[in-house]
Amino acid sequence: MKVKLASNYGFCFGVKRAIKIAEDYKNSATMGPLIHNQDEINRLQNDFNVGLYNNLSDVKENDTVIIRTHGIPKNELKNLRKLNAKVINATCPFVTTPQQIVKKMSNEGYSILIFGDADHPEVKGVQSYGENQEDVHIILEPSDLDNIVFRQNKIATVAQTTKKKEKYLEIVNTLILKNKEVRVFNTICDATFENQDAARDLSKEVDIMIVIGGKNSSNTKQLHSICLENCPDSYLIENETELENIWFNKKDLCGVTAGASTPDWIIQQVIDKIESFN
Amino acid sequence: MKVKLASNYGFCFGVKRAIKIAEDYKNSATMGPLIHNQDEINRLQNDFNVGLYNNLSDVKENDTVIIRTHGIPKNELKNLRKLNAKVINATCPFVTTPQQIVKKMSNEGYSILIFGDADHPEVKGVQSYGENQEDVHIILEPSDLDNIVFRQNKIATVAQTTKKKEKYLEIVNTLILKNKEVRVFNTICDATFENQDAARDLSKEVDIMIVIGGKNSSNTKQLHSICLENCPDSYLIENETELENIWFNKKDLCGVTAGASTPDWIIQQVIDKIESFN
Repeated sequence: MKVKLASNYGFCFGVKRAIKIAEDYKNSATMGPLIHNQDEINRLQNDFNVGLYNNLSDVKENDTVIIRTHGIPKNELKNLRKLNAKVINATCPFVTTPQQIVKKMSNEGYSILIFGDADHPEVKGVQSYGENQEDVHIILEPSDLDNIVFRQNKIATVAQTTKKKEKYLEIVNTLILKNKEVRVFNTICDATFENQDAARDLSKEVDIMIVIGGKNSSNTKQLHSICLENCPDSYLIENETELENIWFNKKDLCGVTAGASTPDWIIQQVIDKIESFN
Repeated sequence: MKVKLASNYGFCFGVKRAIKIAEDYKNSATMGPLIHNQDEINRLQNDFNVGLYNNLSDVKENDTVIIRTHGIPKNELKNLRKLNAKVINATCPFVTTPQQIVKKMSNEGYSILIFGDADHPEVKGVQSYGENQEDVHIILEPSDLDNIVFRQNKIATVAQTTKKKEKYLEIVNTLILKNKEVRVFNTICDATFENQDAARDLSKEVDIMIVIGGKNSSNTKQLHSICLENCPDSYLIENETELENIWFNKKDLCGVTAGASTPDWIIQQVIDKIESFN
């Protein structure tokens, strides 16, 4: 069976970089899971002895500790350094940017608005860089602005890197109409949307689509639903063991894409198996 | 005949202020007409000896010269001061603001975008405050952005005070999607739209509407057309001599509004005459 990979798939730039860093620091531990994929976490543990810490209390003196792509709140970073641990920062550069913007803007006397999920680790980290926490606000919808009292009439805005631009513009427009100055930083990363666009394009030209990723991953499920729109024979699998020969009956070309937490080696195993089918 | 005035009508804050300044400086001259109303210019000339200069060459040493609400380009102001004239600045504070923003932002290394008419005196003045004139851009439509090459990827935007907010947001949104930082200053003044909203409301509750203003004034014509939507008996007049008794036949309540260049004394003459009708 012939296979065609989507032009964008799988890990984004930041995750690829973080995994490379973890491989470079054998015998270290990550603060929180580096990626939402247990197979990859196991691989890092088995091949590079990279462990997993969930709390600061897990950290011992002289440990090498890796900050994951989402970053961590400023105070946690400070506490980590106090423990005499060697801190390796694998925060995605696209996340460091909004952290530094929030720090600089709140120092310059701006009210801060973050478009994102208040519970998401990335957003918690970005939020922590505000100098005046009472004037750092996090929202998901334009209507949430009704409940916010900004201390300043000049507002700086950033967005969680994975959010949709359209909604960000709605929020920003509402702000512009009510405030003298709105300083809009476009911190949204295109990676998620590039994977989706590529899956959409590919699913139009193949007979069958294989989407590889966690069955509970919202990102992967969204890729699957996009593929189904154009190619009814689209299957969501976690690894090559789930492939069934019968799916490929009378098919000529199989498209492959993968969610943002799917490592290349799992993708390669799937491709190898598909190519082995007649 | 009973008369009801619109809750907002006629001169905006900046024009009222400039006329008060002109009255305070007898024997002065304005650089360009202070207002688009010849009767008012005549009144200032006759009652306060306030003349009209159209060019710098008109200015003589020790003259008192008034800058009108639109402001003037920075170099013209400098040249005026070189002539040893006493300069009285009646630039509307809502116009001084974008001038100062453009100066500060271009000093801080931002590309400048002005939403407005490149030929309008206000916009020419605002534009002149950019430190790097090649990186000060003036547009009217989002599609005009296609032809602009900004020198920086951080852009500061201001709008001509009389422009529509909706269009400004369209332009700003296009910029946000393409640039890392867009610093949006909302410099649009509500005065024009407040007059329109008030005319709309009033025209719904009266039998006849009188709109006072220049027959060539786009601002006044727009007020007239808004009134016609709700009140078919809406008339556009320049002064009280045009009123006809027959219009008020079998009417109970007459609404009155006026364009942005119509002085209060003309409005009062119109009201007095309408009230004299049975």
